[in-house]
Amino acid sequence: MTQRILSGMRATNPRLHIGNLEGALRNWVRLQDEGHTMFCMVADYHALTTMGDMPPDLAHNSREVAKDFIAGGLDPERSTIFVQSMVPQHAELHLIFSMVTGLGKLERVPTFKEKKDDLAEGRPVSYGLLGYPVLQSADILLYRPHGVPVGKDQAPHLELSREIARSFNATFGVELFPEFKNIISEDESRATLPGVDMRKMSKSYDNCIYINDTEEETAKRIMGAFTTPTKIRKTDPGVPEGCAVCQYMRLYVPGYEQAWDEDRRGERGCMQSKKELIEALNEYLRPMRERRATLDDGAIDEILQAGAEKARDFAADTMRQVRAAMRINPI
Amino acid sequence: MTQRILSGMRATNPRLHIGNLEGALRNWVRLQDEGHTMFCMVADYHALTTMGDMPPDLAHNSREVAKDFIAGGLDPERSTIFVQSMVPQHAELHLIFSMVTGLGKLERVPTFKEKKDDLAEGRPVSYGLLGYPVLQSADILLYRPHGVPVGKDQAPHLELSREIARSFNATFGVELFPEFKNIISEDESRATLPGVDMRKMSKSYDNCIYINDTEEETAKRIMGAFTTPTKIRKTDPGVPEGCAVCQYMRLYVPGYEQAWDEDRRGERGCMQSKKELIEALNEYLRPMRERRATLDDGAIDEILQAGAEKARDFAADTMRQVRAAMRINPI
Repeated sequence: MTQRILSGMRATNPRLHIGNLEGALRNWVRLQDEGHTMFCMVADYHALTTMGDMPPDLAHNSREVAKDFIAGGLDPERSTIFVQSMVPQHAELHLIFSMVTGLGKLERVPTFKEKKDDLAEGRPVSYGLLGYPVLQSADILLYRPHGVPVGKDQAPHLELSREIARSFNATFGVELFPEFKNIISEDESRATLPGVDMRKMSKSYDNCIYINDTEEETAKRIMGAFTTPTKIRKTDPGVPEGCAVCQYMRLYVPGYEQAWDEDRRGERGCMQSKKELIEALNEYLRPMRERRATLDDGAIDEILQAGAEKARDFAADTMRQVRAAMRINPI
Repeated sequence: MTQRILSGMRATNPRLHIGNLEGALRNWVRLQDEGHTMFCMVADYHALTTMGDMPPDLAHNSREVAKDFIAGGLDPERSTIFVQSMVPQHAELHLIFSMVTGLGKLERVPTFKEKKDDLAEGRPVSYGLLGYPVLQSADILLYRPHGVPVGKDQAPHLELSREIARSFNATFGVELFPEFKNIISEDESRATLPGVDMRKMSKSYDNCIYINDTEEETAKRIMGAFTTPTKIRKTDPGVPEGCAVCQYMRLYVPGYEQAWDEDRRGERGCMQSKKELIEALNEYLRPMRERRATLDDGAIDEILQAGAEKARDFAADTMRQVRAAMRINPI
């Protein structure tokens, strides 16, 4: 059955890395290609939850992230690609949900503590950071989706969204918001792709491989990637599970199992693995990079305007029903 | 100098009482008649801060409150009368301000505790109740006003609004939001008109005289009003300062000073005072009631549509500047 699906990514940075690609975007493209109705959101307001007092260039970031969406395989003809702040209904439903969400519930959301830790030293916790799950609930429920692709760390937020949906329906005697399902990535290892230093892939660690890097940049990143530290010579045994290069090979180099065996037995040097990986990864990313190169700012602006219109149409219909249920004035 | 002024009233109840009239509305009408540019808001979203889980009929309340605005002397040709929820920019600026307002600051707003006490027994404190001053700041600053008519109890909220304005301007290097002034009622005694039982005038105490009461209802209310409890006979001395009837006479009965003296000296009975007050108060309210009777729902809907359009035009211009300053996508 064709489902309506809402997915989104924060526009904190202007570039998506292969962790975003493998952990999320790839999953969205699969769902799109299975024929589902996708609403794919660039969540620019969410970038403000931790950077409200010195936001990045959100207009620029949003465009660039949308380009990466399309580079990664989303087709604006089939999927609705839009920027959150261009659909005012997100702010309206957020405000309404803020009135029906208990303060205590938000304070107990486990990721609130983590988000606080995301803040740079000494930056104050904003009201909006506490309300992150309220905004996310509005983002989701505005599209009354059947499913939401989700990483493990987002599960507590989504539980709250379902609670808000249930409670709204019960309070106002409507069946407006469906009990949407979590769509977990089919391949867990892709969801947790490490950075080149084997820590979590994150811009702040400077350990990312970006979709939009040049082939040379990707090669340089891989050449400097973390490998088994005790493997100095080719003949030293490696531990592929702890080696970034081997981790990436698993995804990008066909027949990687043999390479891993050779690595373990000291029959292969890291340099050989790196070279094979560079070639395979650049080949994998090449069509995405070529597609991305065809998109200038004018083209992406048109796509985002069209996407915002489609999203607004759907969102306005939801808001009409929300207003009617709550007996708020229609607009 | 002509100033731009934003004022608002919660749509918690469908009817304004003479406390609202004397403490706020009268002041707005004076400012309008002095030629200032007035934006007069029916704050329906604010009613949700304490009643989100069982809201009143906000569409109905908004219409009725707007009728009372006009009955009390606001002229929709000269002043912009609008409903908050019909201007989506309130929700947008609220969301943005939620990202730049420290959580700790909100928890320290003195009226937060009072608002919590407003809640009916056992009702949960919502996220939106804590954020009440954030929404109020958006309401105000959207219209970049020079002044805001304000009761004493709202002063701490407005201080936070000024702080948000200053901090937004400083962070983004703009002069977008002016340092607006509090406009305090010229006559303090009008701002604190008691209910007929000498407690604070409030629907929950059932001690109100409503603009839209009939003359008979007003008469009945006054007949049952609290007077000096030790004044049983006409010859017993009264204490006008503690007598609801004498308090109202001060506003509505010309030459009330003599009546007060007679009351003090035991030379006048409460019944005489009540009769004089009933006549004077009904005479005072009569033109308002007559004006109100000419407004059916169709007429008020037209006025509110026109008001919302004017408010949206102004608010959209502010939001364009907010988005440009923060480098958020234009809509």
